[in-house]
Amino acid sequence: MATKPSIPKGTRDFSPAEMAKRNYIFNTIRDVFYLYGFQQIETPAMENLSTLMGKYGEEGDKLLFKIQNSGDYFSGLTDEELLSRNAAKLASKFCEKGLRYDLTVPFARYVVMHRDEITFPFKRFQIQPVWRADRPQKGRYREFYQCDADVVGSNSLLNEVELVQMIDAVFAKFGIRVCVKINNRKILTGIAEIIGEADKIVDITVAIDKLDKIGLDNVNAELASKGIAQEAIDKLQPIILLSGSNEEKLATLKTVLAGSETGLKGIEESEFILSRVAQLGMKAEVELDLTLARGLNYYTGAIFEVKALDVQIGSISGGGRYDNLTGVFGMDGMSGVGISFGADRIYDVLNQLDLYPKEAADATQLLFVNFGEAEAEYVLPFLFKVREAGIRAEIYPDSAKMKKQMSYANAKSVPFVAIAGENEMKEGKIMLKNMESGEQSLLTLVELITVIKG
Amino acid sequence: MATKPSIPKGTRDFSPAEMAKRNYIFNTIRDVFYLYGFQQIETPAMENLSTLMGKYGEEGDKLLFKIQNSGDYFSGLTDEELLSRNAAKLASKFCEKGLRYDLTVPFARYVVMHRDEITFPFKRFQIQPVWRADRPQKGRYREFYQCDADVVGSNSLLNEVELVQMIDAVFAKFGIRVCVKINNRKILTGIAEIIGEADKIVDITVAIDKLDKIGLDNVNAELASKGIAQEAIDKLQPIILLSGSNEEKLATLKTVLAGSETGLKGIEESEFILSRVAQLGMKAEVELDLTLARGLNYYTGAIFEVKALDVQIGSISGGGRYDNLTGVFGMDGMSGVGISFGADRIYDVLNQLDLYPKEAADATQLLFVNFGEAEAEYVLPFLFKVREAGIRAEIYPDSAKMKKQMSYANAKSVPFVAIAGENEMKEGKIMLKNMESGEQSLLTLVELITVIKG
Repeated sequence: MATKPSIPKGTRDFSPAEMAKRNYIFNTIRDVFYLYGFQQIETPAMENLSTLMGKYGEEGDKLLFKIQNSGDYFSGLTDEELLSRNAAKLASKFCEKGLRYDLTVPFARYVVMHRDEITFPFKRFQIQPVWRADRPQKGRYREFYQCDADVVGSNSLLNEVELVQMIDAVFAKFGIRVCVKINNRKILTGIAEIIGEADKIVDITVAIDKLDKIGLDNVNAELASKGIAQEAIDKLQPIILLSGSNEEKLATLKTVLAGSETGLKGIEESEFILSRVAQLGMKAEVELDLTLARGLNYYTGAIFEVKALDVQIGSISGGGRYDNLTGVFGMDGMSGVGISFGADRIYDVLNQLDLYPKEAADATQLLFVNFGEAEAEYVLPFLFKVREAGIRAEIYPDSAKMKKQMSYANAKSVPFVAIAGENEMKEGKIMLKNMESGEQSLLTLVELITVIKG
Repeated sequence: MATKPSIPKGTRDFSPAEMAKRNYIFNTIRDVFYLYGFQQIETPAMENLSTLMGKYGEEGDKLLFKIQNSGDYFSGLTDEELLSRNAAKLASKFCEKGLRYDLTVPFARYVVMHRDEITFPFKRFQIQPVWRADRPQKGRYREFYQCDADVVGSNSLLNEVELVQMIDAVFAKFGIRVCVKINNRKILTGIAEIIGEADKIVDITVAIDKLDKIGLDNVNAELASKGIAQEAIDKLQPIILLSGSNEEKLATLKTVLAGSETGLKGIEESEFILSRVAQLGMKAEVELDLTLARGLNYYTGAIFEVKALDVQIGSISGGGRYDNLTGVFGMDGMSGVGISFGADRIYDVLNQLDLYPKEAADATQLLFVNFGEAEAEYVLPFLFKVREAGIRAEIYPDSAKMKKQMSYANAKSVPFVAIAGENEMKEGKIMLKNMESGEQSLLTLVELITVIKG
């Protein structure tokens, strides 16, 4: 009768072992957010569709999970409307709510709704799941967590400096070697101004990005094929071939973009950010990279992206400066800058590089073996006391075979097992077994606590 | 153009101040779960409707939030079906997924799906939001968190003992004085057997519960009005008037239920649990209370409920023993016992009793005032170093008026403010202001760190 249960495609269960790893990731990121003075908020999983629709483009609207209205969702619908079978149009009649698609739009909505309670600049972080009706594939899920930190209500470039330091701090804690790539939308705008091809900026960055793979001639050919004039391509040559240190790149750009006020502003901003983070001693590489064009419709100043050096994988963190977070909700002039950490990719990187801490921070440290009712009654006060001392401990609840209890200890990777039979009870002690070394010692309660607390 | 945004009714945003309190609650509960050897799992927000439907009764099915299928959800529907406007029936065609309604059914589904990876007994906890399309009202939300801990795959009463200790540990940490009420389904079954009114057990517990308010005569009258025979009411007298210590109550019950094997088993179980927790020294009151009948359809052994002693509010935690968690998914014989903490009610109780820790564990400890570019550049290395020392610190990003920066520090309840102008820069030091006392001292970096780390 009962069918074998399953979960919706693109979603995941997380086992205790996976949760230990995920908690390690989220706790590490959260601790750095706190260290930098960011404060946590949470928003509901469900938002009104009026809040979500139209914010992610036409494609995004289709990827929203919509929640059917409770009760009679047919009310007010004519036969014609129903029989039209217009799925998109009728969804808006059947549904008023949807699951959040990212953390940015709910954050913008939050800022507008709570503007009178918030003290600006507002340094907020948010670590919550989001949902997208994307076609599931390897590494892409329909439910996944985002970890975002943003500062809104401040135009200071110190915020950019701090965010780059935060990126550095997070990946240093993980032990993941990374390169932080930095670009600036204003530099890209300057390039477009100089060559008179404002609408071609994405084509240009895509072509430049291929230099290493296809060589200069082919890059130039690709630019021409995209309808960029020969004169413009000529002007682009120093930019395509841009190389050397960040300082050298900026010096070249200053010459090329001398005629663009916006371009020079972008260079100045990048100089500020790069020089400050250099002074403060970054562990990560930091590289000015003009091919970085993520979120180009959205970002107005600095753009960040983080690549892992030792694993082939897409960017594992990214962000940038934006001008008008809340304009779509009728509140103008709220600029900000933020970054987002890709928890799922970081999970994969830590796995591939075997960088998880060997000792799970929250796992059981001590298991009391259960030999029967009398023995269990003898060990219960010990169990109570070791917990009072802060040791994570448990008793095997049933007086099962020793082998079964030891398998349980092994499956949970419990490092110490406490045994109390007739002899131990007579002496008022506990036999403690170190599961790694196999060593056993007969101990008093105080000794037991001392050994385990190391 | 833009309308003022809002959130769906029955949902909530959580501000930084609220999040600090909520994190305190969840972290406290989580730490106790870990201390007792429980392991965390997470399941997806969305489950297949086939997993959820029929598990919460007809009323529960109506309260499920259903998610509209992506793409053309009309496919395969005839005109007649559409025009029937049968909301409930068509919902099952339009929707294949729903939001989880509790953590128990997803847990059961998890156990069945992962039975081969799990080492039993499985001590799992889960802290995640659930969604119910209930009519919102004060204290009742459409999105709220549940905090559940269960042990499955063990019949040992030691699990019950440990859960009661966990309840005690959690509320002791919160500083909330509570009474843990304990009942046993087998005792209730025994009572029904003895008086020959098996189907009247809820009526009986409801009536007994009114003894203090309406007096014995009225309780007996109510029992009679529910169709319970006079002979049965006579037999019930010692149970209605049950009083004294837990031991005295159990002694009375042993006499009354002498003829019911099940009843005696329930008494024996309760004796075991009550005697063990008494030996281990509970801070909470523990009371055998036969009127406790929560989840009577579900629980088969011990039943727990926790009442706050100093606040008028419903139960703030509860749970019990069940026989067959996973039978509905085709896996029989998986008994277990669990408890659930009501985070929203605990939040209210802590607020009413003003029991939150005065110092937020994750808030900024030190704010550097920003007097301009040169001063900011001077303090950045200090900022970097204090963070390396583990101090949560930030710099006000803009060189705003002093008053504005101090308001910011006050709004975030920052205890220390660091000031560096011309004099401090000359001396290579920082002026540290204690925001509570107003005291200022000129300090080196090392002194600064020492003062703040206290």
